[in-house]
Amino acid sequence: NEKWNSQIQFADQKQEFNKRPSKIGRRSLSRSISQSSTDSYSSAASYTDSSDDETSPRDKQQKNSKGNGDFCIKNIKQADFGRREIEIAEQEMPALMALRKRAQGEKPLAGAKVVGCTHITAQTAVLMETLSALGAQCRWAACNIYSTQNEVAAALAEGGFSVFAWKGESEDDFWWCIDRCVNVEGWQPNMILDDGGDLTHWIYKKYPNMFKKIKGIVEESVTGVHRLYQLSKAGKLCVPAMNVNDSVTKQKFDNLYCCRESILDGLKRTTDVMFGGKQVVVCGYGEVGKGCCAALKAMGSIVYVTEIDPICALQACMDGFRLVKLNEVIRQVDIVITCTGNKNVVVREYLDRMKNGCIVCNMGHSNTEIDVASLRTPELTWERVRSQVDHVIWPDGKRIVLLAEGRLLNLSCSTVPTFVLSITATTQALALIELYNAPEGRYKQDVYLLPKKMDEYVASLHLPTFDAHLTELTDEQAKYLGLNKNGPFKPNYYR
Amino acid sequence: NEKWNSQIQFADQKQEFNKRPSKIGRRSLSRSISQSSTDSYSSAASYTDSSDDETSPRDKQQKNSKGNGDFCIKNIKQADFGRREIEIAEQEMPALMALRKRAQGEKPLAGAKVVGCTHITAQTAVLMETLSALGAQCRWAACNIYSTQNEVAAALAEGGFSVFAWKGESEDDFWWCIDRCVNVEGWQPNMILDDGGDLTHWIYKKYPNMFKKIKGIVEESVTGVHRLYQLSKAGKLCVPAMNVNDSVTKQKFDNLYCCRESILDGLKRTTDVMFGGKQVVVCGYGEVGKGCCAALKAMGSIVYVTEIDPICALQACMDGFRLVKLNEVIRQVDIVITCTGNKNVVVREYLDRMKNGCIVCNMGHSNTEIDVASLRTPELTWERVRSQVDHVIWPDGKRIVLLAEGRLLNLSCSTVPTFVLSITATTQALALIELYNAPEGRYKQDVYLLPKKMDEYVASLHLPTFDAHLTELTDEQAKYLGLNKNGPFKPNYYR
Amino acid sequence: NEKWNSQIQFADQKQEFNKRPSKIGRRSLSRSISQSSTDSYSSAASYTDSSDDETSPRDKQQKNSKGNGDFCIKNIKQADFGRREIEIAEQEMPALMALRKRAQGEKPLAGAKVVGCTHITAQTAVLMETLSALGAQCRWAACNIYSTQNEVAAALAEGGFSVFAWKGESEDDFWWCIDRCVNVEGWQPNMILDDGGDLTHWIYKKYPNMFKKIKGIVEESVTGVHRLYQLSKAGKLCVPAMNVNDSVTKQKFDNLYCCRESILDGLKRTTDVMFGGKQVVVCGYGEVGKGCCAALKAMGSIVYVTEIDPICALQACMDGFRLVKLNEVIRQVDIVITCTGNKNVVVREYLDRMKNGCIVCNMGHSNTEIDVASLRTPELTWERVRSQVDHVIWPDGKRIVLLAEGRLLNLSCSTVPTFVLSITATTQALALIELYNAPEGRYKQDVYLLPKKMDEYVASLHLPTFDAHLTELTDEQAKYLGLNKNGPFKPNYYR
Amino acid sequence: NEKWNSQIQFADQKQEFNKRPSKIGRRSLSRSISQSSTDSYSSAASYTDSSDDETSPRDKQQKNSKGNGDFCIKNIKQADFGRREIEIAEQEMPALMALRKRAQGEKPLAGAKVVGCTHITAQTAVLMETLSALGAQCRWAACNIYSTQNEVAAALAEGGFSVFAWKGESEDDFWWCIDRCVNVEGWQPNMILDDGGDLTHWIYKKYPNMFKKIKGIVEESVTGVHRLYQLSKAGKLCVPAMNVNDSVTKQKFDNLYCCRESILDGLKRTTDVMFGGKQVVVCGYGEVGKGCCAALKAMGSIVYVTEIDPICALQACMDGFRLVKLNEVIRQVDIVITCTGNKNVVVREYLDRMKNGCIVCNMGHSNTEIDVASLRTPELTWERVRSQVDHVIWPDGKRIVLLAEGRLLNLSCSTVPTFVLSITATTQALALIELYNAPEGRYKQDVYLLPKKMDEYVASLHLPTFDAHLTELTDEQAKYLGLNKNGPFKPNYYR
Repeated sequence: NEKWNSQIQFADQKQEFNKRPSKIGRRSLSRSISQSSTDSYSSAASYTDSSDDETSPRDKQQKNSKGNGDFCIKNIKQADFGRREIEIAEQEMPALMALRKRAQGEKPLAGAKVVGCTHITAQTAVLMETLSALGAQCRWAACNIYSTQNEVAAALAEGGFSVFAWKGESEDDFWWCIDRCVNVEGWQPNMILDDGGDLTHWIYKKYPNMFKKIKGIVEESVTGVHRLYQLSKAGKLCVPAMNVNDSVTKQKFDNLYCCRESILDGLKRTTDVMFGGKQVVVCGYGEVGKGCCAALKAMGSIVYVTEIDPICALQACMDGFRLVKLNEVIRQVDIVITCTGNKNVVVREYLDRMKNGCIVCNMGHSNTEIDVASLRTPELTWERVRSQVDHVIWPDGKRIVLLAEGRLLNLSCSTVPTFVLSITATTQALALIELYNAPEGRYKQDVYLLPKKMDEYVASLHLPTFDAHLTELTDEQAKYLGLNKNGPFKPNYYR
Repeated sequence: NEKWNSQIQFADQKQEFNKRPSKIGRRSLSRSISQSSTDSYSSAASYTDSSDDETSPRDKQQKNSKGNGDFCIKNIKQADFGRREIEIAEQEMPALMALRKRAQGEKPLAGAKVVGCTHITAQTAVLMETLSALGAQCRWAACNIYSTQNEVAAALAEGGFSVFAWKGESEDDFWWCIDRCVNVEGWQPNMILDDGGDLTHWIYKKYPNMFKKIKGIVEESVTGVHRLYQLSKAGKLCVPAMNVNDSVTKQKFDNLYCCRESILDGLKRTTDVMFGGKQVVVCGYGEVGKGCCAALKAMGSIVYVTEIDPICALQACMDGFRLVKLNEVIRQVDIVITCTGNKNVVVREYLDRMKNGCIVCNMGHSNTEIDVASLRTPELTWERVRSQVDHVIWPDGKRIVLLAEGRLLNLSCSTVPTFVLSITATTQALALIELYNAPEGRYKQDVYLLPKKMDEYVASLHLPTFDAHLTELTDEQAKYLGLNKNGPFKPNYYR
Repeated sequence: NEKWNSQIQFADQKQEFNKRPSKIGRRSLSRSISQSSTDSYSSAASYTDSSDDETSPRDKQQKNSKGNGDFCIKNIKQADFGRREIEIAEQEMPALMALRKRAQGEKPLAGAKVVGCTHITAQTAVLMETLSALGAQCRWAACNIYSTQNEVAAALAEGGFSVFAWKGESEDDFWWCIDRCVNVEGWQPNMILDDGGDLTHWIYKKYPNMFKKIKGIVEESVTGVHRLYQLSKAGKLCVPAMNVNDSVTKQKFDNLYCCRESILDGLKRTTDVMFGGKQVVVCGYGEVGKGCCAALKAMGSIVYVTEIDPICALQACMDGFRLVKLNEVIRQVDIVITCTGNKNVVVREYLDRMKNGCIVCNMGHSNTEIDVASLRTPELTWERVRSQVDHVIWPDGKRIVLLAEGRLLNLSCSTVPTFVLSITATTQALALIELYNAPEGRYKQDVYLLPKKMDEYVASLHLPTFDAHLTELTDEQAKYLGLNKNGPFKPNYYR
Repeated sequence: NEKWNSQIQFADQKQEFNKRPSKIGRRSLSRSISQSSTDSYSSAASYTDSSDDETSPRDKQQKNSKGNGDFCIKNIKQADFGRREIEIAEQEMPALMALRKRAQGEKPLAGAKVVGCTHITAQTAVLMETLSALGAQCRWAACNIYSTQNEVAAALAEGGFSVFAWKGESEDDFWWCIDRCVNVEGWQPNMILDDGGDLTHWIYKKYPNMFKKIKGIVEESVTGVHRLYQLSKAGKLCVPAMNVNDSVTKQKFDNLYCCRESILDGLKRTTDVMFGGKQVVVCGYGEVGKGCCAALKAMGSIVYVTEIDPICALQACMDGFRLVKLNEVIRQVDIVITCTGNKNVVVREYLDRMKNGCIVCNMGHSNTEIDVASLRTPELTWERVRSQVDHVIWPDGKRIVLLAEGRLLNLSCSTVPTFVLSITATTQALALIELYNAPEGRYKQDVYLLPKKMDEYVASLHLPTFDAHLTELTDEQAKYLGLNKNGPFKPNYYR
């Protein structure tokens, strides 16, 4: 068992670190990360730490103003600035604030000991302080070596949270921080909140006995969920796990609604391209593709779609897009966007045939959709013209404009709105509450989707933002429909 | 068993005939029916049968030109005209025509004996002749006493089909026709194609032993599917049944895409209303509501939405619609549209508060959403101003414009495009093929959805209509995604 | 002079009567006319006069209930029914009703003697009764031999108006009615309200001296305005004339906003075509083309545009339409729509190359855009499949679907909303008031556009329909912009 | 005369320098300027001149590689880098490149001596080199003290142009540079290309006799055009002037099409706001307002409009926007956008009533629309949170988010696409050609719009970018329409 775990661990670890740079591309990437790439845009440049010394946080003595030293961060002095960031985020995360209010007195997480491993940003801080307000104790590490907002970590540490994270960790730091979260005397976690699965696997590898007390895992990322399903299939999953990545609300916001805006934002920030009259081909007409197509059509682009699935293809037709094979339009389009989740969708053969100035980018998944490796050949010249923008130049002078080296445009060159992060965080909080409070036997050692009713609850907590007023069923109507007046209102598979 | 069946039958029969007029509203209603309501609009008025005598078809001796008399229709002389109608329909149903071609030699329905009970229209004829081309023998009755196109029935009879149907059947005629389909010497059906469940129930009641040879039931209507699920729940379903009503492709076309167009069409034909600048409230933001809202927004209406489900509500917000309770906007709106599937959504209280000239109509389900009964009170005056349009007049002179007496606007006052009917018919044909050829044990005595792959196949057969070109996965890509190159491409629940 | 007039007259008359059938296509055609073509659709069929005898109205003794006989209509008994029609129209023409109210006491048309020649419909009746309420005396004839609503004419006659019109006049009747309006003892018109120019020309020809007392002409139609400009150019125009056809508000509503809706309506009523996924080419990207393209794009069609004017062409590009030459797409499109105002845009060569089932229609101007004459050749078969719908069949079986024989689809197969007619009627009323009250010298013997300020006033009178609230300039803002607080707010050429 | 000029000059100069910071907001602002604000975003940061010394360019000896020293710029060594920038711009300005080609041999500007005063950017360089290719000699200064791209100026100087401009000129430098352009021995300009009117006024004031040889002025800015009309009204304009600001093509692109994209871009870059579900009020429904509304509606915002002009108001209604007064919605909206061209549209009273987090910005004109001055009071706290983003904080903690301190969002926080600049530059080039080659007497001492035909020509030169194919009139059609086959196709006032 241990051996098997360590093998998985080893493979994963290697894989993870091999693609560490692309981890920046994870869907769950916080707004602040993306912000950081545009931060220098701000003349106020308030986030930079130019005065910071080079001593490793691990080597420093750290204490907050109350004398507590059970944390490891970059610089406790940034706490005030971080607090302000958190307060601003609170205003945009009304659902979590509502959870705090509604739970007053109740404390549904009383007794919960949550160990977490996520991006550490102002939004995460609002989540952590909500968990705390609901009764939980928290210890936290970062799921990404670059994504920690140091000032937020400082504010959390000052507020009494045991946070172990800073921007620019080494690989060794990364695992050290995780270990510090779980390997504590007199404290043992009973809930895991993970983003990517690294925390879960560390416990599997190092402290498998810990699972005896753990009531469940909440996992947010595609990668982490994939790992859990593999464990489950192999019969190795020893606690219930909640896949919050695939809840309806989160999916719609992460994909359709968010991408509808970020495709425009990402293209504009990098290339200043005018959309009107441009010919664009969008590869893939799933939720992401639908969002991209709708936005570009609305801005006056002429959009072509490629698809492999005839049902999505027919939807593209009915929505007014010509369904083509890539080779039919590759010579004429101004922009190529991949949203397939597949690999090698745009290969060298197509890149060779694009016209001068064609923009190529990926909105889909990871960095596999565009065969960027095929462009790393001697006859092609690469010219970095801006951050995230490369001109790849053919011997005849033709240039294509490659964005984010084929990584996710929406994460590399745009931002994730706080509202979307709020939906994710609320879903995580409710998943923790559900798993922690579920009666014995409701969940087995398997991977679950958030119950439909909770998904609906997440949505309902976000309606006040839009001053939206829900209608309630009358008793008579509920009976007619065979529904409970409080939901769930749709079958689980409803999308 | 027999007793139970007859009880069900009795209840159903009563219920069915009580609501016979509203059966016209069934989703599966063919284009030609709807056409017939607008036919007189045509100055050519080619479909009228003014010369027809009043003798009941049951009392006539009938023979086609080959001497075959195993049918009962209105007038065999209309066969030529009906043939032309069928030929026109063929041009718009390329998927069925493609099925005929692809199956040449194969005859996947060789040996199948299909008894059918559906609307008898040109589109149905194309389906029947396709089944025949695939090897099946067919006997057919009408599922609605008004919906038969007599000239099409004539063409089918002339072509050798045993059809028992005419426009304007009595209740007794209705069951007599069904009986003539199944109660034949030397022929016993092994497949049932039903629309509404009347045929199925007749066999349950009269010839339960017939089920021993029946390989399956294909049912298209909401009502019929509901009955099948009830049978299944009660353990009374004795053959596999295919619910084709809920296949993805059919649903999207019946609801989202079709309603997006028919809401405009239905309102224009009845009221000539200008959409620009109008304030509209749409009750319900499911597929139908989404279609209605998108269309009206595009035409310049200001659209409000009501919802009970917070997830759909949040979608409405993100799509740019104010989410309100009905009472917040009822005084100011120009048009009220129900798409909830619920009952008593627009009750007298709301009708009382609508402004003068407000248009009220139903796109949702049956005729329950608007409480029309509440308007049948002495102080209100009804004025029929056009077919399907009533002015209901309050004592102070206020008028509301009620369309189709609260029945489905899209079916009563608009038409269903042949393309949508083509999708339905193709789905039915594939469901028959699947059930007929399925290896022993694949399907049990239960109700099934069409396998995803077949749903995808229906979609793919309709792509050529749009000159749409599907992309094929490479072997490498299929492997990467863990998919078969020929599909299915998505999980069953994908919408 | 007289001679020249009679020559013009002769030519015009011939031309007019040659194209009488197409006069039905005039932009100003009222809702009710179009309704009449769909009337039989109504089972209530309330408008038919089946009981009417065949005696010519000219041969009947006619008197209203007060003993007044100075009119000539079909049947005075229909007055009550006509009155109800007028009352319904009043509810949808709030601007004219507002004019009546605002003018109380003032009577800006006191002393005006208006002779009118327009379609005689409920909407016109609201206009006439408004003019009367403002102080004018009116005599009226029909501008079209088919368009009179007999019951409305009856209500007007009953109300004391001298109306000379009925549905189905002969050419001789037509001129006789006009003559009865102007050739009266003891009454001489001082204002002309014309639609098409026939009344104006009759006076030019027969009673040129009458112009001495006439203060001005208000003309609404393209044709009539064209005639006036010709007269003006030739130095023959002897009174001021107001071109109300080209006022901004009227143009936008007649073209952009009205056609955005009627293209969909016209296509659906005639062909039941599904718009989603269809490939459409729209010839011409003026206001009408813009409206058609926007509507079809919104419904999921793929739209191509042809243009001759590079500025409109560039607009089409920026709005997301591929700009093509007709021959580039003619083989692939499902629908061809002309909106150019030009002739022979779709010629036989293109018709020959269209694919089977292609729909061809005209939204532009007159009946010249599609070369229908070229289809009247022996090798092609015409089949009338519905009112306004012909299948033209090539020897190889290919059919194209020709709508309204190339006449205006929006007028032949759709309806003009009362709201649009309200804008026209209000513009006419204000033009009459302006010309009648203008101080000596403001208008010379020329053709004028409605002053911008009056155009704005027409618009403002229609805002309450939408519960729209206009912002007023502060004194400081008006000064800053150099504008009068009450307008005009834009230069005359502003569109 | 001189005295009057100097008075104007004095007033203007003062005014100009008072609002110098806001000059950055001019519509004609080049892409590169805006770029510079996002430059630091680029990790490549290629445009910075950190190594530049602090010596004033005026104090340096300057020579290009051919020994020519008739220029004054920052650093000739940057020429290569500037040349690359110009080459990239050339690719996006095909119209000017086409002009160069078409004019080969002809040299329509042979003998022209053009003095110019515009932003000096890569796009301007393409214009200057085009003028040179057409035969003109050019001398150039900057119209803005901040907007010069030093590397482009270097490339121009290296290429032999007499350029006098650098980034960060003092006021004194500004006029010194202009003077160096015109005050040359042995060279006298015969054409003026101005942007803002400073060059024109300098010549008026200092060298009025120069106008004897000057054939015309081409002016691009609103401000400059306004000055010219004032001169003309006062009878002081002594040469023909071409107002290129108001040509149809330029207007549509500067306003409608450009703002449709930049409103989204500007809001995203500054605030990362999610548009879906947001309530937005847009003040003003002219071209800019129409663009903003269309974009936000498409992104799922709920948009309200305010207007003073009933015609624009009615258009807003028909386009689906609720027309309100600002006070009706000010408490509920999330974003306020001004596009009126007016002053004090959003005053303190409204700012006081906005909700927490409301974003306020200006897309209209200058910096007058939002009364920013009213926010500079002691009880309010300003917090700069990013470049161009201020939080203004009320005593109760409410924050509003003010963008660009009320200056133009589209110029301060977004970029102007090269395509839009290409249209402007081509219009300028054609205006120069027209004025230079016009036969004696065609233009008098007045301000003219570009002839319609030339406007159409500008448009036609940009169609190839979209692979757009224009249709040509047949002889017969041209005759029917009474048009020349080569245009102009519309009356001058057509929009």
